[in-house]
Amino acid sequence: MAQKPSIPKGTRDFNPEQVAKRNYIFNTIRNAFETFGFQPIETPSFENSETLMGKYGDEGDRLIFKILNSGDYLSKANAEAYETKDSNKLTTSISEKALRYDLTVPFARYVVQHQNEIEFPFKRYQIQPVWRADRPQKGRFREFYQCDADVVGSGSLWQEVEFIQLYDKVFSKLNLEGVTIKINNRKILSGIAEVIGASDKLIDFTVALDKLDKIGEAKVKQEMLDKGIPQTGIDKLQPLFSISGDFESQIADLKTILSSSEEGQKGIAELEFINNAISELGLNTAKLQLDVTLARGLNYYTGAIFEVSAPESVKMGSIGGGGRYDDLTGIFGMPNMSGVGISFGLDRIYLVLEELVLFPETVSKNVEVLFINFGEKEALFSLKAIKQLRAQDVNAELYPDDAKMKKQMTYANRRNIPFVVLVGESEIGANHYTLKNMVSGSQEKVSLDTLISTIKKS
Amino acid sequence: MAQKPSIPKGTRDFNPEQVAKRNYIFNTIRNAFETFGFQPIETPSFENSETLMGKYGDEGDRLIFKILNSGDYLSKANAEAYETKDSNKLTTSISEKALRYDLTVPFARYVVQHQNEIEFPFKRYQIQPVWRADRPQKGRFREFYQCDADVVGSGSLWQEVEFIQLYDKVFSKLNLEGVTIKINNRKILSGIAEVIGASDKLIDFTVALDKLDKIGEAKVKQEMLDKGIPQTGIDKLQPLFSISGDFESQIADLKTILSSSEEGQKGIAELEFINNAISELGLNTAKLQLDVTLARGLNYYTGAIFEVSAPESVKMGSIGGGGRYDDLTGIFGMPNMSGVGISFGLDRIYLVLEELVLFPETVSKNVEVLFINFGEKEALFSLKAIKQLRAQDVNAELYPDDAKMKKQMTYANRRNIPFVVLVGESEIGANHYTLKNMVSGSQEKVSLDTLISTIKKS
Repeated sequence: MAQKPSIPKGTRDFNPEQVAKRNYIFNTIRNAFETFGFQPIETPSFENSETLMGKYGDEGDRLIFKILNSGDYLSKANAEAYETKDSNKLTTSISEKALRYDLTVPFARYVVQHQNEIEFPFKRYQIQPVWRADRPQKGRFREFYQCDADVVGSGSLWQEVEFIQLYDKVFSKLNLEGVTIKINNRKILSGIAEVIGASDKLIDFTVALDKLDKIGEAKVKQEMLDKGIPQTGIDKLQPLFSISGDFESQIADLKTILSSSEEGQKGIAELEFINNAISELGLNTAKLQLDVTLARGLNYYTGAIFEVSAPESVKMGSIGGGGRYDDLTGIFGMPNMSGVGISFGLDRIYLVLEELVLFPETVSKNVEVLFINFGEKEALFSLKAIKQLRAQDVNAELYPDDAKMKKQMTYANRRNIPFVVLVGESEIGANHYTLKNMVSGSQEKVSLDTLISTIKKS
Repeated sequence: MAQKPSIPKGTRDFNPEQVAKRNYIFNTIRNAFETFGFQPIETPSFENSETLMGKYGDEGDRLIFKILNSGDYLSKANAEAYETKDSNKLTTSISEKALRYDLTVPFARYVVQHQNEIEFPFKRYQIQPVWRADRPQKGRFREFYQCDADVVGSGSLWQEVEFIQLYDKVFSKLNLEGVTIKINNRKILSGIAEVIGASDKLIDFTVALDKLDKIGEAKVKQEMLDKGIPQTGIDKLQPLFSISGDFESQIADLKTILSSSEEGQKGIAELEFINNAISELGLNTAKLQLDVTLARGLNYYTGAIFEVSAPESVKMGSIGGGGRYDDLTGIFGMPNMSGVGISFGLDRIYLVLEELVLFPETVSKNVEVLFINFGEKEALFSLKAIKQLRAQDVNAELYPDDAKMKKQMTYANRRNIPFVVLVGESEIGANHYTLKNMVSGSQEKVSLDTLISTIKKS
């Protein structure tokens, strides 16, 4: 292979600094998940194809990476599909496994498969990569991590309250202040659909309404008419065009607008419960906002819907989302298990923290001290000290070769190693170490104890 | 889907306890890697097929999982292979990506691709899953983690010394005492091959010699003759049949046996250097043993070879291995980069720790306190306390539903939650909490401060 090697499009290598920064976010999320009582599970990277296929719609099916069967896979190829060269039809006969597309369907499969070992309500978290054969673009990858927390087996609205607290906790811990947790409820959307008199126009309605700030009421209404929403429906929803202000006043408006919809009233009551509890409990740095245009995963969620926006100063899509789905495990033959969960978007959170310079300086645990290698005897003397340093959890290394001093110092500089130790014959004789501070340039002869304590407290 | 869902053979779900135990091992290894100055990188789960194919031999190529191209993949199918239904030949035209088979080839690819950003010598570690379409059996999986540390860009034998210390450190930290780090050198094997006069018989020779303890000298020699090793070669190696004792005496024997082989003498000198340094530096709990029958990865390694055995009381294959390969990156067009590395076998280490009951009891960070849910008002009062507990890093949860007391207590018991808090109207009135110790059964009324401190110090 003569040309420089590369990686598949939409995938990434992570260098040491990037790994450290990603782990900082993962660990923050993981710790928060655990203080909230969530327990980790892991599932295989690939599932049987029938576990995944048909769960994400036709578009999802296309985006699932399929794994070719091993051995003489053509011997079991579907003859008709082979004859007609029908890729789509042939797939199931030459591929039995597929890469995980998200963490929710594997979680549902896990719950059903292990139902007899699980105590319900089951609060699980899962931080693993997923794969999608999507067209790669800025911020969208073919391999990326999801960080999910879900509860299954309880319809209690306290869960929704806790998930809002959990979002607040994670983003506060990351020093990312000013995120907005937007909330809506699928039942309110159903109420709106009832009032419009056309539930199939619900998405068109919310998409248009969402543009109110940008294009104004008249143009929004025109778009609704163009999409086939009847004038009578738009009239009935007139108060939605002026809905604004805080959570409570929006709730008051909704009560009027959706007075005729029992489902809508249910959704309002749920939101009210959640908002009251959050008001009592308080949030650290996030704010909770009711957004009746929020309509993510419409066919999926049945109750609360969440979406988190980065602080307004940063241009970025949602950095988290989730909601309630009343029948999580029905697809695998275990009905009536209500679930609710949220997800954190690792890659976007990373970009936001980078843009706002919020990664702590200490995030990557670099080598703290390099011992210069002056030859065999000196190296052995150095390794004895290094052994003591490492026993004290100091990251220490010996330059492996007795290369020119300048080369070794350049290596220390380029790797931003803060301390360098020089051990020559005189140091061995006196049983001490010359410690050089690479930032200040100062240099002193110290005992092993002082060496260790100086590096440890720096 | 009516039947209970399942996962592909050779893959595993991990429940919360298993995840916690695996993370305990990962974290121990990761911390040791970092104190030794290794830095983490991560590479994509799948690579371009040409990066992987041809690097692991024919058998390896067969065991690599291939990913089917997306869309109408048959439109680019190799016409001739399609005509003749040649699975093997067809693959490259319908599959461009493949799952990572190990971490070494992706590391070599990474080094070449990012050579201008890397400071050499480059000490990297990588802890990620790999996939092999192997026949699953006890302890062998199709998805499993590798934990690798490698240095590239230095031929210094100090690296070998440090890797032995690193093995010792990790297994000592895991309280797994009495592991044996077996070492050999490819150059000694070359010397033996020279003396036999048939380098293609080297594996047959070492395989037979390895059985000396079990079947005795006569049968070993017969097996060698049967494999076509000449009597003259066996005679010359006669001293090998009685080689034994400590490292130093084996070295002395080898010096005689391999006196005619320059390559063999080089290998002996390397081993001697390593053994002398380790004798000076000392090991905590592991022992270093010279094993001239150790011949892993014969076509791959060029210098030192390592393999770690579990303590003798446990029946288990090697729990780690590695070695020196003089030309790591040559396959990607960057010659003369010497590399040396070791790997830890997570799954086997897990089984050994389980068998010897060496996992710390505190390894899984369980929920520490459950608040019983007596209704809306009580739950809200509880959540205020829970918020404080979580801020102090206590894992706390509220039972989500105001179910029957007995059901909630059963949940706490089954999940081994050590404390339960009961908050009723009287507790709210008095602003205190009834704290029940689930182990002792004792119960007391406490303030929030006492509640937090009692749980924290338990």
